[in-house]
Parts: sequence; C-alpha cells; structure tokens
Amino acid sequence: MRRPQIGIMGSSEADDTQRRVAEAAGRAVARAGAALVTGGRDGVMQAAAKGCAEAGGTVIAVTPFAPMEQVNEYTHYVIPTGLGWARNVITAISGDVILVVGGAAGTLSEIAYAWMYDRPIVALSESGGWAKKLAGERIDHRREDCIIDCDDVSKLGPILSELLAKRPLKTIPPVGPDAP
Amino acid sequence: MRRPQIGIMGSSEADDTQRRVAEAAGRAVARAGAALVTGGRDGVMQAAAKGCAEAGGTVIAVTPFAPMEQVNEYTHYVIPTGLGWARNVITAISGDVILVVGGAAGTLSEIAYAWMYDRPIVALSESGGWAKKLAGERIDHRREDCIIDCDDVSKLGPILSELLAKRPLKTIPPVGPDAP
Amino acid sequence: MRRPQIGIMGSSEADDTQRRVAEAAGRAVARAGAALVTGGRDGVMQAAAKGCAEAGGTVIAVTPFAPMEQVNEYTHYVIPTGLGWARNVITAISGDVILVVGGAAGTLSEIAYAWMYDRPIVALSESGGWAKKLAGERIDHRREDCIIDCDDVSKLGPILSELLAKRPLKTIPPVGPDAP
Amino acid sequence: MRRPQIGIMGSSEADDTQRRVAEAAGRAVARAGAALVTGGRDGVMQAAAKGCAEAGGTVIAVTPFAPMEQVNEYTHYVIPTGLGWARNVITAISGDVILVVGGAAGTLSEIAYAWMYDRPIVALSESGGWAKKLAGERIDHRREDCIIDCDDVSKLGPILSELLAKRPLKTIPPVGPDAP
Repeated sequence: MRRPQIGIMGSSEADDTQRRVAEAAGRAVARAGAALVTGGRDGVMQAAAKGCAEAGGTVIAVTPFAPMEQVNEYTHYVIPTGLGWARNVITAISGDVILVVGGAAGTLSEIAYAWMYDRPIVALSESGGWAKKLAGERIDHRREDCIIDCDDVSKLGPILSELLAKRPLKTIPPVGPDAP
Repeated sequence: MRRPQIGIMGSSEADDTQRRVAEAAGRAVARAGAALVTGGRDGVMQAAAKGCAEAGGTVIAVTPFAPMEQVNEYTHYVIPTGLGWARNVITAISGDVILVVGGAAGTLSEIAYAWMYDRPIVALSESGGWAKKLAGERIDHRREDCIIDCDDVSKLGPILSELLAKRPLKTIPPVGPDAP
Repeated sequence: MRRPQIGIMGSSEADDTQRRVAEAAGRAVARAGAALVTGGRDGVMQAAAKGCAEAGGTVIAVTPFAPMEQVNEYTHYVIPTGLGWARNVITAISGDVILVVGGAAGTLSEIAYAWMYDRPIVALSESGGWAKKLAGERIDHRREDCIIDCDDVSKLGPILSELLAKRPLKTIPPVGPDAP
Repeated sequence: MRRPQIGIMGSSEADDTQRRVAEAAGRAVARAGAALVTGGRDGVMQAAAKGCAEAGGTVIAVTPFAPMEQVNEYTHYVIPTGLGWARNVITAISGDVILVVGGAAGTLSEIAYAWMYDRPIVALSESGGWAKKLAGERIDHRREDCIIDCDDVSKLGPILSELLAKRPLKTIPPVGPDAP
C-alpha cells in the first residue's frame, strides 16, 4: 500500500541551471508515479516542488522549522521538525531513491546520510556542486555501488523507473526499539 | 496549496476500545478532507491509519526506524527518521490539529511537545490513558486554552471542522536558521 | 572509569522557591561526588549549576542552541545540539539519576523520556509544577517503580547515595546500529 | 568559566595508523588543557579517549545509544542520545576545534556539520580517509577558510594552542527559541 517516493537534495540558494535541473527532476518524479520529498525551502527545493506539483505529482516537505505554514508554496503536505540542520538526517533517507542537485555543505551531509542508510543516490551532475564532485564515486567501503552519475536530466526518467522497480516491497514489522 | 493534515498520537499497544476509537478518528479525519499523520507502528497508529485509508484518506507515517518499508500496511507515504523515540518530537507537531487516543509515556511526551509548539490538541477521553487524564487540562501557563475533551468519537467531526477552519493560511517564508 | 552523573530538569523561568531548591540540589549533587548535567539555560538550570559549581562539582550543559558560548556562566563543559526543544530527549537521559524541580511543558516532556528510558526519577515536590503533580506517581505500566517524592531538598543527599549505589557498573560494548 | 574542549571525529573501525594518530591527538588535547569530546565508540574514538585520559585529560562521549553504560572504557562522562547516526550532528559541533582522523561516511557527515556550524576543522591527513581527501579544502562558499591540513600529528600541539586562543570568550545569553 506504500507508494513510491523520491527525495531531492539541494541548496536553498540555486543558480539558473540548478533551478532548471531541479524543476525537470521534479517533473520526472511525477511522471514516474512517485511522490517527491524535499526540505521545503527555497532554491532547489522550491524548483523541484514546482516541477512535480505542476506535473500532477504529490509533494511532501520535511522542514527544519516548527510552524506548519513555513514551507514553499508548491508543497502539499508538511512534516515540520524544529530540528534546524539536523533535519537533513531525515530528508536524506525519506525516499526509495535520493536525487542530488548542486549542493553545498548541507547537501554533502545528506549525501553522507543517504549512503549510510543504503539509499540509491543519483547525482544530476550538470548542476555542479557536490552533485558533480561525487557523481560516480563511492563514499566508503560499506557499499559496492557508486553514486549514479546522470549528466543530463532528460535521461533521468528511465533511471528512476529502473531503481523504483528494485525497491523493497516486503514490509518489516513496525516493532522495535521504542516499543511499547 | 498546503492541504489540511491531522496528527494522531497513541500507543503501539492498544486495547479494543482504543482500536475502535482510533479507527473512528481516522475515518473522521478522512471525512474532514485532511491527511492523517501517524507514527507508523501498530496499535493506535495502525487502527487510525486503517480508518483513514479505508475512508479514502491519505496516510503519512513518521517512523522511529530507518528503513522505508518498516511501517504498517495502511500507510501511503513514510518519513523514516532513524531517531528512536526522539521522533515523537516530530509526530507531535505534524498536524494542524493533534488527536490523542489512550496513551502511555510516549504519548505523554507528544502531548507536551504539541503544547509547546502551540498545536490545538483534542483528547479522545473515552480511550483512557493520558488522553483521559489530561482532557480539559492546561499543561502550563504559556497557553490560555485547554486540551479539548472529546468524550465520544462520534462527536469528533464538527470539532475537526471548526479547528481546521482556524488554521493559518498565510505562509511564512521558508528561510531562517539553516540558510543557505 | 565512567564517573557518576546526575541530571536536573526544570524551567528556564523559576520563582524564588524553585531557585532555592535547584541550588541546594546542585550542591547535593556535588557532595554526592557526581557531575551535574543541565540544559544550560537560565532559571532552574542556572541555579542548579551555581550550586554544584560553587560546591566544587563539575557541570555539563546540553543546550538547544548551536554556539559553544550560548550557555549559563556556571557551566564547565557544553554540548550544543542545535536541536531546539528536541534536545530535551537528551537531557532527560543524561544521568544515572534524574531530578525534577518545578516544571512546565518542557519538563513534562523530559519526565516522560526519563521514564521511557528507565532512569530513576526524583521529584523535588516542594518546588511545585510537574514535579509536584507527578511525585509518587507511575507514568505508565512499563515500570514497577514510581517517581520518587523528595518533599524537602535537605533530604536529597541520602536518596542520591542510595540510587547511585545501584547504578550499572558493567559496561555494554559500544557497538550497534550505527556501525561502522 | 567554560573550559576549552576539542572534538574528534573518526570511524569505529580503525587501522593501526589511525589508532596511533588518534591516540597521539588525544594526548595533544590533554596537553593543550582541553577536554576531549568523542562519539564514545571503538576505533578512533576509543584510541583518542585512551590518549587523552592517560595524559590526565577529561573525556566526554556523546553516544548514539540510550544506556549510560554503553560507552568505551576511557570515558569519564557520557551524554547518551538514543538518536542513532543523527548524533553525528551533535558530536560535530561539540568542540571549540574539531579534529578528523581517517573517516568513512559518518565522519563525512560530521565534517559537513562542523563546517555549517562554523567550527575550525583540523584534518590529520596522514590517517587517510576523508581526513586526507578534504585536508586543505573548502566545503562550500559560506566560509573563507579551509579545513586545516595537519600532516603529522606531532605538529598538532601548536595548531591547537593557536585555535583555542581565538575561541569566543564572551557569552551569548542562553535564551531563545525554546523559552520558557
């Protein structure tokens, strides 16, 4: 019953190329039938949300703020955290696939977390930043795979379809460290 | 563009009354046109998700776990946190209104956080637990209002409609402590 | 090699009684040979830190802020979190024993967390607030014990000695969910 | 009244060189008159704690676990978080200076956070890993400085003295987003 969802990481400040790539990536997410998870702010997050929402997709934002209403205008559902930058830990793992556009230090922290928590990562390398620096690289020895380099956002659709087809469908019982 | 959403707090262990109340509350949320946010686990969370999903509503879960697939079967979208019990801080504030069903210590922490972050709180007091103990009470002096006592879940619909009508519609620019 | 440590929970706003009780509690912690862990802010936290530091004890603060230097003047070591109110999860469990003085909603969240994570809790009930309301109570069914009621801070010393004598001395290997 | 403190980041798995460098770094921290903050686990964290404690310094651990006693044997004070990997956000900023030894993805997340929160960072580059890859680099445009490259741990002492001399001594009032 769980639906596919894809996270996008990137800075709240974005240049024109990054906004174009993010918006196209958001559209590709909607066309792949997945919801988009962003950090809810400006820049890459806003452009991706716009692309997804205008293509008919659903947008969920996990924000660093506490108010429900402190979020960009293309967001349908908001998960406020009040955690400041620590919310990066959550955005980084809130997708069956994680996309990276551009990226400064905050995005680097998210790439590291997505890697630790074993999410497939696709770097849209034409957008520069840490997406470009780490495209095709391995972060450490714990994984056999690499960050996938997608050097042209027009090629993103088939990559998403392939990765979503591999996502785990069996569920794990939701019991554990915080029971009861 | 943001859609209304309502959180529900309650234990992963639930008796028959609590499950009945939670499921009815989930249905009321769907009928109010809001999405339901839960903690994604068993018990109250599962029953509420079932009620909402079967009535055609959307269910989002914020889990204490890291895997995407560790969530109950009535959930549409999942925000895994990997934070253990600290995820209670987030579930507690992820709604325009927060509902409480039954409740042990985890739920008590969520009531405290919902109060601190100024969310309207409705206790479904027929379900016992901390919902019953704190229905009609003020947690501290920072707020003028009380936790609303709804002693019969069949009366929940109009309460939700009234509270959702008051939710903030203006947005706050999503800039702040974690820029850029 | 680990040394005993005791946490104190209470509001950043404190009346004269609460400041007096907190300062005496801080002195008792120092005399029991334990370090004091506080939230690093004003009110109860500051008074307790003053009492402990002036009696020759060590004070560690876990703050909601990010800067190292945003902490009260009686603190020796600071652990900044940048987490806002979510840092309550951490202060609540950073002691072999947890003391409660007065208390508004933030303190209530800390009592709930200390209970969930199985810390012995002593409420200094003469200070009012949630300390008084929950002294002698059980938060839920998961524990057999109650929140200990210490209705006069001059009686705190022997209670601390007894609780510290029971603290776990064996260590648990520090491996687990975040390896490597 | 706040005392100087220095954080060390590195993996729970360490080779011989990394252990040697970490232990020497821990000694240098003690000799600089600072407390050492680690993540409390094995590997780099344990070796650094050993070096500091055996040289007479104080060791504080911020662990991903909830139990007080789940920490390496060279630790004096423990701040358990129960946050899993999200505790990296805290270790990364719990020092007037942050040292990096070796490092896999977890350490990379800590470098990113230390950078965002404006801590001086010293990479002990002879230890390899992300310490070596990022020594002398800038993570993004928000800072003018670089990660300092210390290519021989025997040269660390004067670097620490110089950085500690610049640490902020004025305090910021501990009031703010989570009042009261």
